[in-house]
Amino acid sequence: MESGTPGGSGPAEPGPRLRGLGGALQAAWASLLSGAQAQAQAEGGCCAPAVAAVLPAGGSGERMGVPTPKQFCPILERPLISYTLQALERVRWIKDIVVAVTGGNMEAMKGIIQRYQHKRISLVEAGVTRHRSIFNGLKALAESQPNSRLSRPEVVIIHDAVRPFVEEDVLLKVVTAAKEHGAAGAIRPLVSTVISPSSDGCLDHSLDRTKHRASEMPQAFLFDVIYEAYQQCSDYDLEFGTECLQLALKYCHVKAKLVEGSPDLWKVTYKRDLYAAESIIKERISQQMCVVMDTKEDEEHVGRCLEEMLKNELNHVKVMSGRDLQQVILEQCYNFVCVNVMTSDFEKTQKLLNVLDESNLSILYPVVVISVHFLDNKSIPFGRKMEDLMQIKELAREVKKRNILLCGLLIYYPQENLHNFMD
Amino acid sequence: MESGTPGGSGPAEPGPRLRGLGGALQAAWASLLSGAQAQAQAEGGCCAPAVAAVLPAGGSGERMGVPTPKQFCPILERPLISYTLQALERVRWIKDIVVAVTGGNMEAMKGIIQRYQHKRISLVEAGVTRHRSIFNGLKALAESQPNSRLSRPEVVIIHDAVRPFVEEDVLLKVVTAAKEHGAAGAIRPLVSTVISPSSDGCLDHSLDRTKHRASEMPQAFLFDVIYEAYQQCSDYDLEFGTECLQLALKYCHVKAKLVEGSPDLWKVTYKRDLYAAESIIKERISQQMCVVMDTKEDEEHVGRCLEEMLKNELNHVKVMSGRDLQQVILEQCYNFVCVNVMTSDFEKTQKLLNVLDESNLSILYPVVVISVHFLDNKSIPFGRKMEDLMQIKELAREVKKRNILLCGLLIYYPQENLHNFMD
Repeated sequence: MESGTPGGSGPAEPGPRLRGLGGALQAAWASLLSGAQAQAQAEGGCCAPAVAAVLPAGGSGERMGVPTPKQFCPILERPLISYTLQALERVRWIKDIVVAVTGGNMEAMKGIIQRYQHKRISLVEAGVTRHRSIFNGLKALAESQPNSRLSRPEVVIIHDAVRPFVEEDVLLKVVTAAKEHGAAGAIRPLVSTVISPSSDGCLDHSLDRTKHRASEMPQAFLFDVIYEAYQQCSDYDLEFGTECLQLALKYCHVKAKLVEGSPDLWKVTYKRDLYAAESIIKERISQQMCVVMDTKEDEEHVGRCLEEMLKNELNHVKVMSGRDLQQVILEQCYNFVCVNVMTSDFEKTQKLLNVLDESNLSILYPVVVISVHFLDNKSIPFGRKMEDLMQIKELAREVKKRNILLCGLLIYYPQENLHNFMD
Repeated sequence: MESGTPGGSGPAEPGPRLRGLGGALQAAWASLLSGAQAQAQAEGGCCAPAVAAVLPAGGSGERMGVPTPKQFCPILERPLISYTLQALERVRWIKDIVVAVTGGNMEAMKGIIQRYQHKRISLVEAGVTRHRSIFNGLKALAESQPNSRLSRPEVVIIHDAVRPFVEEDVLLKVVTAAKEHGAAGAIRPLVSTVISPSSDGCLDHSLDRTKHRASEMPQAFLFDVIYEAYQQCSDYDLEFGTECLQLALKYCHVKAKLVEGSPDLWKVTYKRDLYAAESIIKERISQQMCVVMDTKEDEEHVGRCLEEMLKNELNHVKVMSGRDLQQVILEQCYNFVCVNVMTSDFEKTQKLLNVLDESNLSILYPVVVISVHFLDNKSIPFGRKMEDLMQIKELAREVKKRNILLCGLLIYYPQENLHNFMD
């Protein structure tokens, strides 16, 4: 999944969301970068601002009503936390990701990192509360051991393991705001009115919805600010507090900048949220389709017709030739149609399967490949048709083991009708 | 769907949830009933407490990001609001349900009521805000016109059109508490910390999560209390307020009793909530299965084996004979297996299909019927097998129009092996 080296000197390739944001974010990044460069130069260090992330993942998931902690619940057979790690890893300028897990889940977490090939992850032991877990993560970043690859960052992002849909734009916004204000956090409008009960279980007063917001994640802090706040704060805070922004305010007098987040930031809390997350992920991966074809006239014609038809159904349809396959992988498309006209060999499909194999695409999601062959009915004997069917069936069985679902679609037609058929 | 007459003298047959609650709710209902009886006797009226519900459904659903207002978004092809109406209709002691919809949606709403055969519904025009819509609903109940079937209730429930999973137990709890306190509402723990921003977009302070709750629906009020509050309240309240409990407090000095609700009370707000609602509904209807068989020895044996196997997979498995079919309908099961041993006629299946047709079950959800036939391989000629297949295919096509999905499973086996096969 990783598309660059950690601590690179520029922002990651912007995702579809970020691309639409235009100049504002680029300016934010430029200012973030130039500030860091100035500081780094003064310190004689390197030129990129050092950003790390801490992910408390020690929760028991009691609200979910299932025995597995929610961050380890499977969505399309992959644990929820792996989606969140993937979302953070895609952001190349996040140098280190420190995950706090309980001792009991440490081996399972190591297994997840290995299986889904997560990078730049360090594990620390979770505390008994969320605040203690975050503190443990911060300590690991602050007190670099000789053997540790971690180093003290300038800015630290704090995020939740159970918010898998975080986008690069909001991460950049909170990091930029934290650089300026010392602390920043994403907020959302309240969905329900908030009330304060009296001790007898009756309504004392209700809060004005327009004057309050829900505090969400991600949040970001100058490392020195939040680390100082955690070192200063009381045991009571560590036991019963939930809000990092409040610690920065209380102990470092830093008033966090509040950043409006998108609805995607929501936290998987209840079982219904797992259902919602699964549907969103399915929808996202099924809305992209790549049509692979050669530049032969007939094939190009079929490919373009297919593109037109698919565009009515799907958000992202891309047509490319067999030579651009590496590009396909970078765009993280999970659905492919290989168009073949007048050939029943699977050379092009096999080439695509090889590229998919070399990438890690199918480790994260199932990949669907449809190999379509338009063949002249008259020129192919029945025995050959059966052979083709057997061959694709065999190939499908083989790639299934690697989470690639291959379908063959052999379309026999009288050749003279091809253009009529497609027009 | 309606399982009794409005204003009946007792509570509805308790659902699975209510059944588990034991004595507490029965006592609550008894007290509610006896208080009402005393009052009704004093007034020379009838013996049941009059409860109505008002459902504001005039919202535009702007947070959903889709053009259709969220209460009209389809879930399994049926509009969301129809699920909420169904949930309220199942509660026999709710006499009237007043729905406030905008003029532009009035005809669509009438169509929904007719198509899904909703009962006890009256429509009023929605106002431009939620509070104005509720007020319109209350006015319709207060000022009964000569031609109106509505009458002023003693207690009124206010619920949201977009909270389809409300259960009878919480409705009973808020109504009982409203009888005693004048007002009552369901609450839930906060999912996120609530903060108060300062005017410069920075954190002013964060609220203690343990001292605050999310105010959810349903709420209930003595009709005179909430109607008085709406009559007294300012235009500002009607335009910008959201909380009915607050109106009762401000204008009638009634401190609402707060009732802990279940996670099911959540409000469909974002597109992800539609996904979640669909998954929950699918899960619920697929977790019930009815095995229909006769008392013939072989059939009973097969039926019991099937019951054992299904119980490992599903929450509610019921075995019943063909004679108890009416009971099946009352329990609102949507999945059936008809067991037939040594007969390929579809008499029993046809009988079930007739009962389903007479009920309105398949108007609300698709009903699945699997007709399983165990037949002696040797005694049945090939032609007959084909005939059986054709017959079930024909029947399936016919009932499909009425939202019933019929599958035939013809199992040919050497008869002497039946018991071995099933054991």
